Amino acid sequence: MTALEVQGAAAKAAARTLACAGTRDKNAALEAIASALLERTQEILAANAADLSAAAASGMSESMQDRLRLTAQRIAGIADGVRQVAALPDPIGAAVSEAVRPNGLRISRRRVPLGVIGIIYEARPNVTVDAAALCLKSGNAVILRGGKEAFRSNQALTEIMRSAIAGAGLDENAVSLVQDTSRDSANELMHLTAYLDVLIPRGGRGLIRAVTANATVPVIRTGEGVCHTFVDESADLDMAVSIAYNAKCSRPSVCNAMECILVHRAVAPAFLPMMKGKMDEKSVELRGDETVQAILGGCVVPATAEDWDTEYGDYILAVKVVDSLDEAIDFCNTHGTGHSEAIVTDRYSNAQRFLNEVDAAAVYVNASTRFTDGGEFGLGAEIGISTQKMHARGPMGLEELTSTKFVVYGEGQVR
Amino acid sequence: MTALEVQGAAAKAAARTLACAGTRDKNAALEAIASALLERTQEILAANAADLSAAAASGMSESMQDRLRLTAQRIAGIADGVRQVAALPDPIGAAVSEAVRPNGLRISRRRVPLGVIGIIYEARPNVTVDAAALCLKSGNAVILRGGKEAFRSNQALTEIMRSAIAGAGLDENAVSLVQDTSRDSANELMHLTAYLDVLIPRGGRGLIRAVTANATVPVIRTGEGVCHTFVDESADLDMAVSIAYNAKCSRPSVCNAMECILVHRAVAPAFLPMMKGKMDEKSVELRGDETVQAILGGCVVPATAEDWDTEYGDYILAVKVVDSLDEAIDFCNTHGTGHSEAIVTDRYSNAQRFLNEVDAAAVYVNASTRFTDGGEFGLGAEIGISTQKMHARGPMGLEELTSTKFVVYGEGQVR
Repeated sequence: MTALEVQGAAAKAAARTLACAGTRDKNAALEAIASALLERTQEILAANAADLSAAAASGMSESMQDRLRLTAQRIAGIADGVRQVAALPDPIGAAVSEAVRPNGLRISRRRVPLGVIGIIYEARPNVTVDAAALCLKSGNAVILRGGKEAFRSNQALTEIMRSAIAGAGLDENAVSLVQDTSRDSANELMHLTAYLDVLIPRGGRGLIRAVTANATVPVIRTGEGVCHTFVDESADLDMAVSIAYNAKCSRPSVCNAMECILVHRAVAPAFLPMMKGKMDEKSVELRGDETVQAILGGCVVPATAEDWDTEYGDYILAVKVVDSLDEAIDFCNTHGTGHSEAIVTDRYSNAQRFLNEVDAAAVYVNASTRFTDGGEFGLGAEIGISTQKMHARGPMGLEELTSTKFVVYGEGQVR
Repeated sequence: MTALEVQGAAAKAAARTLACAGTRDKNAALEAIASALLERTQEILAANAADLSAAAASGMSESMQDRLRLTAQRIAGIADGVRQVAALPDPIGAAVSEAVRPNGLRISRRRVPLGVIGIIYEARPNVTVDAAALCLKSGNAVILRGGKEAFRSNQALTEIMRSAIAGAGLDENAVSLVQDTSRDSANELMHLTAYLDVLIPRGGRGLIRAVTANATVPVIRTGEGVCHTFVDESADLDMAVSIAYNAKCSRPSVCNAMECILVHRAVAPAFLPMMKGKMDEKSVELRGDETVQAILGGCVVPATAEDWDTEYGDYILAVKVVDSLDEAIDFCNTHGTGHSEAIVTDRYSNAQRFLNEVDAAAVYVNASTRFTDGGEFGLGAEIGISTQKMHARGPMGLEELTSTKFVVYGEGQVR
């Protein structure tokens, strides 16, 4: 067996006991993790400092270093997140349905954990704890495979979690970190079908595409967001400016940020200058089609075909004028990633058509796409935002980390 | 574009309109299909006769020819199945949850179709209609890729369904048949990620494993069943014989039939001869471990390691004596395929432990594994029995052919 197979087998064994662990025991382990993170903050900071100095030496960009950086305050925030997960309802064991059949069989469909979840992620060490806490609460074992830049930080965090879990009387192999951070280990994890029930990549588009294209373990695709806002002919233009500005500028790097705005031709001459005035506050670069260029003039960068499919993650916005609702819907369905799509309108029938016909995890009328988030949607916490249709779609909370099982009580029935 | 890409694009376009079709329109199309199947029975029989004579000429086994064979009565049964699907509740559009958030956003999570479903199957032409009816009712377009042995039959059935669908005012491309029945087309379908949302293989183990191992389109694994029954120390032995006989002999070829029985050592000397007496009625071949051989004598075929992992699909049963409930649970979890597992017991705590600790789609106390079926479980109809944990587990009805979508009603909210 390879090192990863040994780790997989240990995780699978832990998953079997964790599936039967009570809520009280799982919560006690989460509380122990939160306390240990606070008590052992200095250890974590020391490991993180070593990661950061190696990162600086290797020429990592400032923004990437910031993602990697932990502070006492950030660690306290992470511990607080663990306590919030402990406070959420336990999804495991609940009966989704239950019925007695005509032959007397009582059939209950119950929530059970998925089993062993693999997470492949990049340079954010907070994911190590966030993901582990959600998996633990939902009765799943987790194998974490973080980026090499954060290895020392992840190692310290995982060690602290494992000893807290063992101290609370559960199997410490419920949480483990892949020790090899080379490409080989990511590749092996993608094919570890004997031990992994599902693999969730968290990170940039390149990572997610590589995992989706290569893995034979079932994958949940998350976090790719080319989101649109369509400003309809009947839109309240002040509202449209406010929504567009929020969707683009409140946090451009996240997947629910707007990348492209579609504007109905009838309101483009009035709306585009208003929008530009607001976007200028953040020096947003506008990349527009010919009509947009004609209306706004030289400040607009001519859009290329590639712009319509690009997730900028930055203060850049593609702008297109469309002739109709049909064209807008079709454009969203062609160029969107099925994440979040919004219409600003005051026409009832257009709102209904957009909601029904646009094929995305979240569709909005008169609100910012930035709300697509487990916390905002009331799920309590999220492990990612699924952009696929199978298993889970949109923000994934604890329930999305479960499967079901039919439990059948008989008295000797035969068919 | 390849022929299959053209077909995929047409299916995707049909899926968009079908997702918004009302229940009345979908039911009208299903009724039209049922009527047309009855009216055009002679055409179907003629096409089937051509398939059958080619099959006979190629030396196909009698049992395979029987799977391929259609009769007026079987076609009437297929049409009746379509009417039953029409009578089922439409899962699409229902709100799974709805809430108003503190900021006033109304967020509804609604059932929507998956989109385009691919079905890869073998020589049973009834699958062509059964699968199409379930997909149509759940608002999905379907691309059918049947075996070459049934091509003429499938072609006739598909043509009849397409004209009925068009006659009912829906897009006929909601249902289509892959025209190329070579391995190449199956392979292309497994990678048609631009158009297919999910792929469901229906057939033997070889087909299912090949699709699972190769497809980059998300797959739902169905129908592999190495099912066990554990006869506990406290079992009512008459009940255990009745359940075992039913689980093995009522229909040995199906996936919910028992392949292996585990018997507690304390009751083996009493139980095994009783069971053998009953199994002899169907001349079931018993393959046992050394203890079983010692108890039953020379009529037992010595079991090899391979027997513990074999889905016989025949009147053959692997028999093993175990020392404890723990050993039985561990054996089910190691050698089972996660399909259906049963315990016969009168000890409460053993029943509970078996239900909780055995990891399978359906777990039973004191009943035959043969009940794992969409009809028996009250789902109305099924497209297959999932043995994976993601998306769907166990018998898959109409709801399992759906995804969800968050629909958000705002009044200008920004984050």
